[in-house]
Amino acid sequence: VDLNGIFPPIPTPFAGDDIDWRGLSSNVTRWGRAGLRGLLVLGTNGEAPFIDAAEAERIIAATRKDLPSDQVIMAGTGHPSTRQTIAATQAAAAAGADVALVVTPFYFKSQMTADALVRHFTEVADRSPIPMLLYNIPPLTGVSLPIPAVVKLAAHPRIIGIKDSSGDVGYVADLVTHTRHIQKGTHPFQILVGVAPNLFAALSVGAHGGILAIANVFPELCVTLHRYVRAGRHADALELQRALTPLARAVTVTYGIPGLKSALDAVGGYVGGSPRLPLLPIGAAQAEEIAQMIERLKPLASTTPASVLNPQTI
Amino acid sequence: VDLNGIFPPIPTPFAGDDIDWRGLSSNVTRWGRAGLRGLLVLGTNGEAPFIDAAEAERIIAATRKDLPSDQVIMAGTGHPSTRQTIAATQAAAAAGADVALVVTPFYFKSQMTADALVRHFTEVADRSPIPMLLYNIPPLTGVSLPIPAVVKLAAHPRIIGIKDSSGDVGYVADLVTHTRHIQKGTHPFQILVGVAPNLFAALSVGAHGGILAIANVFPELCVTLHRYVRAGRHADALELQRALTPLARAVTVTYGIPGLKSALDAVGGYVGGSPRLPLLPIGAAQAEEIAQMIERLKPLASTTPASVLNPQTI
Amino acid sequence: VDLNGIFPPIPTPFAGDDIDWRGLSSNVTRWGRAGLRGLLVLGTNGEAPFIDAAEAERIIAATRKDLPSDQVIMAGTGHPSTRQTIAATQAAAAAGADVALVVTPFYFKSQMTADALVRHFTEVADRSPIPMLLYNIPPLTGVSLPIPAVVKLAAHPRIIGIKDSSGDVGYVADLVTHTRHIQKGTHPFQILVGVAPNLFAALSVGAHGGILAIANVFPELCVTLHRYVRAGRHADALELQRALTPLARAVTVTYGIPGLKSALDAVGGYVGGSPRLPLLPIGAAQAEEIAQMIERLKPLASTTPASVLNPQTI
Amino acid sequence: VDLNGIFPPIPTPFAGDDIDWRGLSSNVTRWGRAGLRGLLVLGTNGEAPFIDAAEAERIIAATRKDLPSDQVIMAGTGHPSTRQTIAATQAAAAAGADVALVVTPFYFKSQMTADALVRHFTEVADRSPIPMLLYNIPPLTGVSLPIPAVVKLAAHPRIIGIKDSSGDVGYVADLVTHTRHIQKGTHPFQILVGVAPNLFAALSVGAHGGILAIANVFPELCVTLHRYVRAGRHADALELQRALTPLARAVTVTYGIPGLKSALDAVGGYVGGSPRLPLLPIGAAQAEEIAQMIERLKPLASTTPASVLNPQTI
Repeated sequence: VDLNGIFPPIPTPFAGDDIDWRGLSSNVTRWGRAGLRGLLVLGTNGEAPFIDAAEAERIIAATRKDLPSDQVIMAGTGHPSTRQTIAATQAAAAAGADVALVVTPFYFKSQMTADALVRHFTEVADRSPIPMLLYNIPPLTGVSLPIPAVVKLAAHPRIIGIKDSSGDVGYVADLVTHTRHIQKGTHPFQILVGVAPNLFAALSVGAHGGILAIANVFPELCVTLHRYVRAGRHADALELQRALTPLARAVTVTYGIPGLKSALDAVGGYVGGSPRLPLLPIGAAQAEEIAQMIERLKPLASTTPASVLNPQTI
Repeated sequence: VDLNGIFPPIPTPFAGDDIDWRGLSSNVTRWGRAGLRGLLVLGTNGEAPFIDAAEAERIIAATRKDLPSDQVIMAGTGHPSTRQTIAATQAAAAAGADVALVVTPFYFKSQMTADALVRHFTEVADRSPIPMLLYNIPPLTGVSLPIPAVVKLAAHPRIIGIKDSSGDVGYVADLVTHTRHIQKGTHPFQILVGVAPNLFAALSVGAHGGILAIANVFPELCVTLHRYVRAGRHADALELQRALTPLARAVTVTYGIPGLKSALDAVGGYVGGSPRLPLLPIGAAQAEEIAQMIERLKPLASTTPASVLNPQTI
Repeated sequence: VDLNGIFPPIPTPFAGDDIDWRGLSSNVTRWGRAGLRGLLVLGTNGEAPFIDAAEAERIIAATRKDLPSDQVIMAGTGHPSTRQTIAATQAAAAAGADVALVVTPFYFKSQMTADALVRHFTEVADRSPIPMLLYNIPPLTGVSLPIPAVVKLAAHPRIIGIKDSSGDVGYVADLVTHTRHIQKGTHPFQILVGVAPNLFAALSVGAHGGILAIANVFPELCVTLHRYVRAGRHADALELQRALTPLARAVTVTYGIPGLKSALDAVGGYVGGSPRLPLLPIGAAQAEEIAQMIERLKPLASTTPASVLNPQTI
Repeated sequence: VDLNGIFPPIPTPFAGDDIDWRGLSSNVTRWGRAGLRGLLVLGTNGEAPFIDAAEAERIIAATRKDLPSDQVIMAGTGHPSTRQTIAATQAAAAAGADVALVVTPFYFKSQMTADALVRHFTEVADRSPIPMLLYNIPPLTGVSLPIPAVVKLAAHPRIIGIKDSSGDVGYVADLVTHTRHIQKGTHPFQILVGVAPNLFAALSVGAHGGILAIANVFPELCVTLHRYVRAGRHADALELQRALTPLARAVTVTYGIPGLKSALDAVGGYVGGSPRLPLLPIGAAQAEEIAQMIERLKPLASTTPASVLNPQTI
């Protein structure tokens, strides 16, 4: 599976207590035309911990139906226990996911030694019908996956890469240094960054792509940044990075999922809406602040050379 | 519901992939004779996040069957989302739980403002068929429940108390100061401490009882300590505290649930066993260390005056 | 040296760039009549890191002159390096200090292993002309002094006790458990607590006294609390604790030294004033909040039975 | 002052209790031939908090004497209080320093609001005879300098740049974004990174240079990396970064100053030695580990094209 490119971790739209299936479908259809490498469903931004098993399978199946078949569906399947994670991974594969993204377990964070983490990921990979990515996100989990554990796990045939949301570009660089000689079929061990303000820097030190909340809102701009780097147009990539960073922060650390959903409503053409409780919807002042950030980016988005969507011409 | 006294947060024994129902039954029967005020099932020490909904209901029902009817069954029902928590609380009530213990939601910890927490607990309490306790455990969750939010929530007729595992005796003291004038039926708002090394200090500043991992292993000693404090025998209580603290730390912060289960195996008469993955069983050296701590406490346990189990005679 | 009792960590009053020597003198004279066991000069609350060596010696000498000779002068002498600490300790002794309070060095906190800490304190104690207290304050320093290191250091003839400001009553209780059999002349190894909201709890588990910012403002109330505990009047002590806690927090964690100085100005009869830069003076709204807390405590202070100042009659 | 380039934060060699002046002189002479932009004296790596005022002035004067006059001497002058910092800055200027590096004050970290920090730096800059750099190092200080405060301070004529050791490349990128239009004489506001594993990434997002412990040990390799980036040779720069990172971590986060001094002894031609207490010298096993890292880098250092030391030919 080729993961070189940009993936948005898509939010789950709700209509009252239920999922807004129509909204999900129109969102997926639109993302499908944006040059993305694929979508991450049931990530943290999809409110995965609030979604039950039956909903999860249906979300994957619905996304698969609406997304062009050459685009990758990655599904978050991490759960507190190993057995739950295996069950969710198998169910995701059956529903149509191409790749599973498995976060470090963290409920009992002080017991999550390197041995426990290696055991967990190995058990899941052994029973997974599909390729799998590790997911390291210490600011959320309080658990950090040591590089030697990653190297050990990278030897497993079904573990094809890692998403890192540590915020530490040095960690990403170390991942590249220690795994770049590991070949998984036609691809190396693939490294995706999960912190948008670091996208340019992470690609510069050798990451292959990104899974970024802001890619839900301005997918083309994120794709363009990625292609600029691939084409060696570093100055252009850096300018784009600078333009994207403020909104990227607003829809993650500052306002979280309520902010991301508000941004989708503001950009137009997407369905955002409210999160499930205990997340509260964003306040009016914050929504206005996000809307203004989006207005500032729209001209840039509309003038992106069409060529950037065609990797051959950049 | 009278919560004055000691509750062990009982672990869940496993036999292979399934729950060891026979082991659970014999454990509960034994705890039922130890002078405890009741049991907490499906707490963190019960590996609740690893237990599915069907198992959870059956655990509650089985415990109810084996526990004397004057002893309280408290059930952990907190989940990441409000709707999951409501569902789990209603199911727990239907299965026979007397009280629900609801942890602060924490998956999206940076969004858990006082407003979000008050909204969550209120929604759950509104729909709960049984009385409810708040649960504050910042070292696990990264979320701290502010005292003014507790005071506001204490006005809800079904919110009867709080368990605090912050480790901060000053916070417990503040809880007492700010809620002691709030009457819930025949009882005040009740405060239970969840950190055993602080049991004596917390009771001294006005807490009503404790929910303590070590109460699984030496329930009578914990009950005795509580009764000593109630009887004004502070020096005796403090000596008992000093004796219990080392093992109390070993079965919590140091070795976690694997340590607690190992201690149950070592003390004799209880079923401990291994946790579910990703928790790894304890190593032999650690188990030996715990066994030695238990040997040092056994003489004390066997010489506890029978009288302490009779509150009238202490 | 008998440390059973209450010590205020006195602030340093300034007049422009210089120290307000007259203000210091009148403050010390007044504290000298309040039943305190002594004073801590050049602690954190004395803005010690802002005070140069010549000022430090003169502060100690001036305090000694104004304080009754049966009251203890403790001086903070901790510096980043061992040699600076030794020099400051010898200078403090020469200027009239009775006891040195030496904080764990912390500039290079990640290198401060137990071995490094034991070596540092031993080198200082070997060269100190006066008895010495260890000082553990992890919230400020990021360094925690392990109990086994304390036990090892307690064997040194000149290390007579410890001040703990960890905020963890369990740590205080462990200190007592592991050092109470160590006799230093006519006293045991003495334990002073540095967190006022925990004073009652810490005394209950066996601490000998306290070094408390609020004792600058209402010394008699703190002394009374200590004597209530010594007399077994736990309920009275706890009521007093509850009354003192809000102001105790305001003059420490909430508003720091600017808050403490503002409180001295508000209570009347003491000189508070402004701190040295980079500390900014407190704002008017905060000063008003502190003044109101003080007004609420004044009636309590004025009705404290005179008898409490006479340990024989309580 | 042009800061484009690499600065080592030089350690202070000791001979017994005193400074090893001869060792300092030979070290400085050697660094002076390595293509560096200058030296930082009295930084954290110089054990500045352990150095008294008289020693500090003499270190600056001695370094000035031995360093070619076109190379910059930057001196750490931050102290806990504003007045001490002003005094140290004036003394450093008098002794021959070209630029002062002033760390955020942090002793009372919870009071270090943006207002307090802006006030402090402004007071110091107003009274500084020489240009000044801000210094942000949250992992050591617990204080983070907000970007808007930096922008405000960058308007001061004598504040010419900032050193950032946050470890967050996103923060460096934000600094560039928000200050790149600010012109200070012939240079923009200059940004130096203090975390060697991030050197390549930080330069890629627009930083101007670095102040790096490893630049004491292999100055030429760091200079080469910087020049590769300036010449657009990104792949070469990245390879060099990967080679340097392990040793860079060993002489900072892993083994600290004792590790850095050990590395200087191992690389040959420099004087390292032991730190002052409470820092302990490095153990033999750790020294051996560092020595092996150095052996692996030596071939690379010896084959660095001579041309890289000549910016015109790279």
